[in-house]
This record gives sequence, C-alpha cells and structure tokens, in this order.
Amino acid sequence: MKLGRLNHVGVATPSIERSLDMYRTLYGVEPSSPPFDLPAQGVRVCFVDAPNSQVELIEPLGPDSPVAKFLEKNPQGGQHHVCFEVHDIAEARAHFEGAGVRILGATRIGAHGTPIFFLHPKDTGGVLTELMESPRQAH
Amino acid sequence: MKLGRLNHVGVATPSIERSLDMYRTLYGVEPSSPPFDLPAQGVRVCFVDAPNSQVELIEPLGPDSPVAKFLEKNPQGGQHHVCFEVHDIAEARAHFEGAGVRILGATRIGAHGTPIFFLHPKDTGGVLTELMESPRQAH
Repeated sequence: MKLGRLNHVGVATPSIERSLDMYRTLYGVEPSSPPFDLPAQGVRVCFVDAPNSQVELIEPLGPDSPVAKFLEKNPQGGQHHVCFEVHDIAEARAHFEGAGVRILGATRIGAHGTPIFFLHPKDTGGVLTELMESPRQAH
Repeated sequence: MKLGRLNHVGVATPSIERSLDMYRTLYGVEPSSPPFDLPAQGVRVCFVDAPNSQVELIEPLGPDSPVAKFLEKNPQGGQHHVCFEVHDIAEARAHFEGAGVRILGATRIGAHGTPIFFLHPKDTGGVLTELMESPRQAH
C-alpha cells in the first residue's frame, strides 16, 4: 500500500448553494459539474476544482444523514474528511484490515463512480479518511 | 483571485513522531524532510507527500500554541486547516479584505518559506483556510 493522490478534501455544509456562492465570490471558481444526490450515502455532493485536487461539498439529504450529526456539532460546516486514491481497493481494504484499522461499512461506489471505503478516525489520528480506487483513465 | 493548488491539508497531532509511525505503517510514506520548528507560530511541523499534494503534521511547541486549544477539543488530533496557493499574496490579501473576510493576523513567512496568512473559519464555511504564495520554482 502506497498513498496515492489526495483526490479531495470533504467539506460538510448546511447548504451547497451557499457554499458555491462563497467559492465563486472568494475564490473565483465554479463547480466542475452540478450538485448530485448519493441517496445510498444520505448526502448531496458537489465538487469544486483546484488545479491539482478538489473540494467535495457535502450536504445532508435528511436528518438521518451521517453528515447531519457533524453539522449539529459544527452548524456552519467544516472539514469532514480527506480522500486518498489507491490503485486497487480490494488490496487496500485487505491491507488496512491486516493492520487492525477499523473500516466503516462495506466497500461501495463513491461520488466519482469508483469503489471507496472509510477508515475510522480513531485509528487514523483523528482524520476521517476515505480510500478511493483511482478512476481508470488516471492510470 | 483564482484558487491555486491545494498545497496541503494541515493535520494537528499531539505527536509528530507517532503520526509519522502511522503514515509509515498504514500508508507506506516517509516525511519529505525532517520535522522542524516554527517558533513564531508556536508549532513544530513535518510534511508527508502524496503524489499531488501534502499533509502537514502540526504539533504544538507549548501550551500557548494556537494548536494546543485545538488538541484540547480533539486530543487525538484531526484536520486543522487547508492551504491553497495564490500567485501574489499581497493581491490575495487585498482581495479578501475587500470581500470583508476576517484575516487572522499579519502576513508572515510560512512553513514553505513563502508569505502566508489565514482566513477566519467563520467567514469560510467553517474551514480554517491558509493562503500561501506559490514558491517561485512552481511558476
């Protein structure tokens, strides 16, 4: 296992629209595509591009969303997770399981259409960490 | 003002050494250079490279460190800030001041040897944000 690209920083927000206004006004950037729902994960997301990486804006789809609890503690929003790419998600999962790191749920398809899973922040220095298989065209 | 590279994600830690052990074991990466002190900022830092960006590990130099308060709330550590590059730090500062964003202190020299300043998280969707002038060789 070797750390791949920092694909994105996940930022929770009570309103993607208001966050996009901020990114337009303060940083001069538009989203790379319109916001879209990930119902299986209980979130609506939207990506904003920096030249080398992305910010993923994450809004809860409802009160049961995993992001809703984060926003209760941080009503304004804030840094929610980081996402690193890996070459092979199954290999990565076996590696982290072998290292005794707790994995949050099953491997599933993430916002970029490739398999992902999350590591428990208590096993990663307090940083909720997503591992994402690199999109094929990136190889 | 146009958002530049995501230079790094700043991660607070009670112990850079223990964090480096974790990055070695879990992610197979070594620091890009040894940890070093930034006494003016009250922190000790160390950078770990992903292929396209970096993680900045930040340990308080003492109880008065700005990171010490963060660690009181998050004893394990966690995501502390994000840092985006800008072409011209003075131009960026004027832009954010003009937009009414609160800036935390003076422009000063940061961990990469170029001028930086921080934006107040209450004006940036809860994300403590560092702006850093791109190193010359990056242009």
